Amino acid sequence: MHVTLVYVDIVPDKIDAFIEATRQNHLNSTQEPGNRRFDVLRDCENPNRFLLYEAYASEADAKAHKETGHYFAWRDTVQSMMAAPRRGVRYDGLFPEG
Amino acid sequence: MHVTLVYVDIVPDKIDAFIEATRQNHLNSTQEPGNRRFDVLRDCENPNRFLLYEAYASEADAKAHKETGHYFAWRDTVQSMMAAPRRGVRYDGLFPEG
Repeated sequence: MHVTLVYVDIVPDKIDAFIEATRQNHLNSTQEPGNRRFDVLRDCENPNRFLLYEAYASEADAKAHKETGHYFAWRDTVQSMMAAPRRGVRYDGLFPEG
Repeated sequence: MHVTLVYVDIVPDKIDAFIEATRQNHLNSTQEPGNRRFDVLRDCENPNRFLLYEAYASEADAKAHKETGHYFAWRDTVQSMMAAPRRGVRYDGLFPEG
């Protein structure tokens, strides 16, 4: 799996709107071919912080996500909600294999 | 989902042994009741660094993992392979729901 973790820090009064926009992104992204996970997590210690756990079968599948309408809609909707620029970290998924 | 991310930094000459021990942990953990994910990831930029992405249906399921023989075996096997103490961060899984 090709995995990207996206760390997001949201301004407090935008949290409900961020969760709803990201729920829509989750629902659409999990329908993409090659998507394996699109988990939306909230930090237990810092509830303004969220983590998107995005896993795709191939690098091409991961790149295709960045060209979907729902990705652009999410990106544009949440841009002004962030307390700091979001940060993506890429991982190579060893297990499960394939 | 109750999610824990475990960040691990491994000394270079122990990496193959760490991967094999963690593969065994993955195979056993994904058989546990309540386990949703037990993904083993390797950092693309820092190949000595690994991330275990562990998700369980409930907090009780997550706690039960820490009482399994395969968890104890992994913990004891990899202890001396770490370049620094491992670090766990807990998240509340918002989506997928349930």
